[in-house]
Amino acid sequence: MNVEQQFEGIEELWSPRVIGRVNDQYIKVAKLHGQFTWHKHDDEDELFLVVKGRLKIQFEDGDVELGPGDFHVVPKGVMHNPVADQECWVMLIETVTTKHTGDVKSVLTKTIEQQLAS
Amino acid sequence: MNVEQQFEGIEELWSPRVIGRVNDQYIKVAKLHGQFTWHKHDDEDELFLVVKGRLKIQFEDGDVELGPGDFHVVPKGVMHNPVADQECWVMLIETVTTKHTGDVKSVLTKTIEQQLAS
Repeated sequence: MNVEQQFEGIEELWSPRVIGRVNDQYIKVAKLHGQFTWHKHDDEDELFLVVKGRLKIQFEDGDVELGPGDFHVVPKGVMHNPVADQECWVMLIETVTTKHTGDVKSVLTKTIEQQLAS
Repeated sequence: MNVEQQFEGIEELWSPRVIGRVNDQYIKVAKLHGQFTWHKHDDEDELFLVVKGRLKIQFEDGDVELGPGDFHVVPKGVMHNPVADQECWVMLIETVTTKHTGDVKSVLTKTIEQQLAS
């Protein structure tokens, strides 16, 4: 399974698609552009790996800038906000129970059922 | 952290280096060339993502061929043997408790302490 090919047909931004599972972690891909929303996952780390474009992850104490092939793990409990000034393609690794926007409700929020069916 | 840069300085083949952790999974990189050894992990899946080169994963019922950007999840309990005809760079995702060669002992076997220190 080719990672880049898994982005084919994704039109909706910020809408993760589950492409695989290893142990209790889902592998997902998503196209990002613009601002997401500040949130945290109390009990789960979240890995972002940039496939194409650039991603800024805003933290309360500063930003992390990622380009193609760069990854960053957002530790559990840490507030963060992904921002992409141009369209950015990311691969995500998250525990199967992780909620898209943590305990924050947003118009962007996708359930895991939506992520599995997308 | 750039994935490709994490391969710098790795001279020993088949010797994974831990480069990160997300939840209970280690992110590792390894340079492969030649044959590994047939083995399985009774309780843990293992993800292979090819960064450079080509990898064949032999299974008892056939082979899977992977090129750059391709990934494959070896399910728990399934016998497999990675083979790289040319040098191949892979990223691995494995549970922190996963043993390198399962219950098989090999001259290639690395402990997790060796993988963390490499």
